[in-house]
Amino acid sequence: MSKSNEKTTNTPRSRRQVFTGTFIHSKNLTELEILHNTYVYVDEYGVIVRITSSDLEGREGREGMQEDMKELGWDREDVEYTHIHAPQYPNSGLFGSSTLLNWLNTYTFPLESSLSSLPKANTIYSRIIQRTLSHGTTTAAYYATLHVAATNLLADLCLHHGQRALIGRCCMDSSSGANPPYYRDENAQQSLQRTMDCISHCEKIDPDRALITAILTPRFAPSCTRELMLSLGKLSHEKNLPIQTHISENRAEVSWVRELFPECADTGYAGVYDAYGCLTPRTILAHAVHVSEGEVRLIRERGSGIAHCPVSNSALRSGMAGVRGWLDGGVKVGLGTDVSGGFSASVLVAAREASCVSRCVAAGVGGVDGEGSGGGSGGRKGEERDALSVEEVLYLATRGGAEVVGMQEVIGGFEVGMQWDAQLVGLGKPLMRKNDDGDGGWEDNITEDNIKEEVGAEDVVGAEETGPVDIFGWETWEEKIAKWVFNGDDRNTLKVWVKGRLVHQRRGGVAL
Amino acid sequence: MSKSNEKTTNTPRSRRQVFTGTFIHSKNLTELEILHNTYVYVDEYGVIVRITSSDLEGREGREGMQEDMKELGWDREDVEYTHIHAPQYPNSGLFGSSTLLNWLNTYTFPLESSLSSLPKANTIYSRIIQRTLSHGTTTAAYYATLHVAATNLLADLCLHHGQRALIGRCCMDSSSGANPPYYRDENAQQSLQRTMDCISHCEKIDPDRALITAILTPRFAPSCTRELMLSLGKLSHEKNLPIQTHISENRAEVSWVRELFPECADTGYAGVYDAYGCLTPRTILAHAVHVSEGEVRLIRERGSGIAHCPVSNSALRSGMAGVRGWLDGGVKVGLGTDVSGGFSASVLVAAREASCVSRCVAAGVGGVDGEGSGGGSGGRKGEERDALSVEEVLYLATRGGAEVVGMQEVIGGFEVGMQWDAQLVGLGKPLMRKNDDGDGGWEDNITEDNIKEEVGAEDVVGAEETGPVDIFGWETWEEKIAKWVFNGDDRNTLKVWVKGRLVHQRRGGVAL
Repeated sequence: MSKSNEKTTNTPRSRRQVFTGTFIHSKNLTELEILHNTYVYVDEYGVIVRITSSDLEGREGREGMQEDMKELGWDREDVEYTHIHAPQYPNSGLFGSSTLLNWLNTYTFPLESSLSSLPKANTIYSRIIQRTLSHGTTTAAYYATLHVAATNLLADLCLHHGQRALIGRCCMDSSSGANPPYYRDENAQQSLQRTMDCISHCEKIDPDRALITAILTPRFAPSCTRELMLSLGKLSHEKNLPIQTHISENRAEVSWVRELFPECADTGYAGVYDAYGCLTPRTILAHAVHVSEGEVRLIRERGSGIAHCPVSNSALRSGMAGVRGWLDGGVKVGLGTDVSGGFSASVLVAAREASCVSRCVAAGVGGVDGEGSGGGSGGRKGEERDALSVEEVLYLATRGGAEVVGMQEVIGGFEVGMQWDAQLVGLGKPLMRKNDDGDGGWEDNITEDNIKEEVGAEDVVGAEETGPVDIFGWETWEEKIAKWVFNGDDRNTLKVWVKGRLVHQRRGGVAL
Repeated sequence: MSKSNEKTTNTPRSRRQVFTGTFIHSKNLTELEILHNTYVYVDEYGVIVRITSSDLEGREGREGMQEDMKELGWDREDVEYTHIHAPQYPNSGLFGSSTLLNWLNTYTFPLESSLSSLPKANTIYSRIIQRTLSHGTTTAAYYATLHVAATNLLADLCLHHGQRALIGRCCMDSSSGANPPYYRDENAQQSLQRTMDCISHCEKIDPDRALITAILTPRFAPSCTRELMLSLGKLSHEKNLPIQTHISENRAEVSWVRELFPECADTGYAGVYDAYGCLTPRTILAHAVHVSEGEVRLIRERGSGIAHCPVSNSALRSGMAGVRGWLDGGVKVGLGTDVSGGFSASVLVAAREASCVSRCVAAGVGGVDGEGSGGGSGGRKGEERDALSVEEVLYLATRGGAEVVGMQEVIGGFEVGMQWDAQLVGLGKPLMRKNDDGDGGWEDNITEDNIKEEVGAEDVVGAEETGPVDIFGWETWEEKIAKWVFNGDDRNTLKVWVKGRLVHQRRGGVAL
């Protein structure tokens, strides 16, 4: 895809850009790389063409940059310089499988079906795109509704706002009872035709799939006939399109699938998708809370990936997923917000909840040695390594997500040849500084931002302006990153770029 | 305490105030009461003296108010009117057992010990008070450090900022290995004397305990000698002072306590506090993740309460507490942030995590019928009723907390005789409105707040100004409250009052 972009996007999208400062990305599952005093050169197509670090190479910043420019054959006048003093994090390959904002699952079908109204779809979709961009999501895999027009509008809006997106019209043709009579495709043929209409629209507005790609979206097995799944699997192969669906979200659903597809009793829920052509290297499976070890093996063998949706799984009482087991099994794993099953459109919240839930898995359920008090009693003892580290949840939110959508060569890190997908994170000024006495003591770091003002009799704190993360001044970079992961929010996301284009900036953001 | 306040605070603290609008508080554990078109009259001592609802009594607003004023004998000129169009929530009786902001538990002792520096303590304590106020916490039970001067400073700062607080100097005299050599009381006598110094200070600055009360704080059983616990229990009785400590946070700790106090083998960890005089009707026990059913009975019999700290319990891999079991057992339960074990100073985040964790308890650990994949496999099946509702977590955050600190007659709801502790919650303007066609359709609700601005080539969303909760216009009050609980933050907390005094207001807050 990277190649096709380079080949076809002959019209430069923006000026060449040089970003300087500290850059942070996942090196691998367990390590973050923190690059200080670094220069990242992004060409007019949004692709990173050079990364140099003064620290590593012992060069002076300005001088080194002039050398780099010369070697790149870039003219100073043609380049936009962005000087950055704050940690950056590329936050790409994230799955906001979002069409709606109401978190009550029982409301889903009525609300989805009401998106036949384009003005309503316009407001809701514009908002969720702006929201997810404001949380640093550069790439989203969207479940839309079954409506062709509204789904095409979502594609238009993503392109307009500059968010990289997989656009999925929901396919749901079964009369199993999973689909309400007022909101379903009549049969596989109709479902396929409507899907083709959406694919054509995506191809029309973005023929190179530079930002927008259609994604085949059988809602979940109980919603779909065997015929529909087979057709979608075939279509995926013919047109090289990704597939997304749900799997094993809760126990009742798993049992139901067993009843509906008795022919797959041996291979389970994953076996159903496999039997009907939907378990492919380009398939994204949401949830997977209750998959068996055999299913994990099958998913790995087929090269499919899992979108872990911890907020949704907690909120809807689905259960706690065994992420460590998936990773040990060699399965690709990314993070999903799963709005509205998940209540937050923020992938940072998803990363945080992934951490918290994995720590609950590690601890097991409460109760001492089996004798507990009521609700929390007598669970299994978890293992310490079930817990996901800060580095690991950030990997899942970036490179892991990129792998699941098959874009690991294009986004997810700061590497030459990758596209410039990044967010600028600001944590505000430190509240304290070392005093001048040389005794290692600390004193107030009085600035305009953190000074207390007396307004009448009341104290006013500027916390809502500087953001939710308090930095005292003595934190290491690793600690600053952890503070951001656990307490940060969209106030810390000052700017977001997709493919070199600035697509979000915080209004009235605090200068760094 | 309410009585003593009325008697002794003869100097009016502020003008009489009338608040009008919609008021929301917990009626009981499972129900919220939403009072529209309501007038709350708060006297010059911060006490609610009358509540009337036009809805209920069929009176016209202004007229009714004039009648009320007449009956109260209040002069129009002496009264400050506050007109409110947004939901309000009294958010009192909350336990931010907070002295520090770094979430790494291993950093705790070094950081605590460094608070011998008063400038450092001043900055940190000022910040946590302002932060918790900005999150709507009107009452906090603080664990300070073992330093007398810094602990007294915390009391001074709470009084200055107007936050109701229980101030606890940490008592830790044991040489069991729980306390590091560089940071402990030398013996029970010294610990008691230092504690007395802090109590005297609190009595000096707030003799009526109108806002500030000392709280006896044996850190946790392994930190304390039997002699110290016995002395603190006696002191609590003599001076009618509350006690706070930790209990059964994780399994290793529980086993250690068993070893350290073999004489309490039959009655467990709670039995240790009981044997040494610290399990009283004024005792607050943090965590209790691993208490047995027998301990729950003992805690109930003694009338002690539990501060449930779900964020901390998840973050530190302590486990998932069985809150339903405690409630079924008749134990008083409130919420704690447990900073820095818990990473957030927001009690709303604590309420949210209490909900999420209880839903994980309800779901049991992942894996279908015992055959799961790795980390999440094979847990117990939870029960649906283990899940805590929105109403229940809000109860725990308000009235539940008030019960645990023994102030259920004074704060926690909007009732005549209670003090005016409240927060004004704003959720921003609806994004849509019903169109004028009469067809039930919706259209964009264009306002200055949610209009999209084109700045250069980039779209800018004002989400960080209007706050994190999106209201579309069709939500019921119950849905608005749920949206606030799950997505709200300090941007939605526009004003906070403690005992009638405005102690926090959002700088640049969105007008309602």
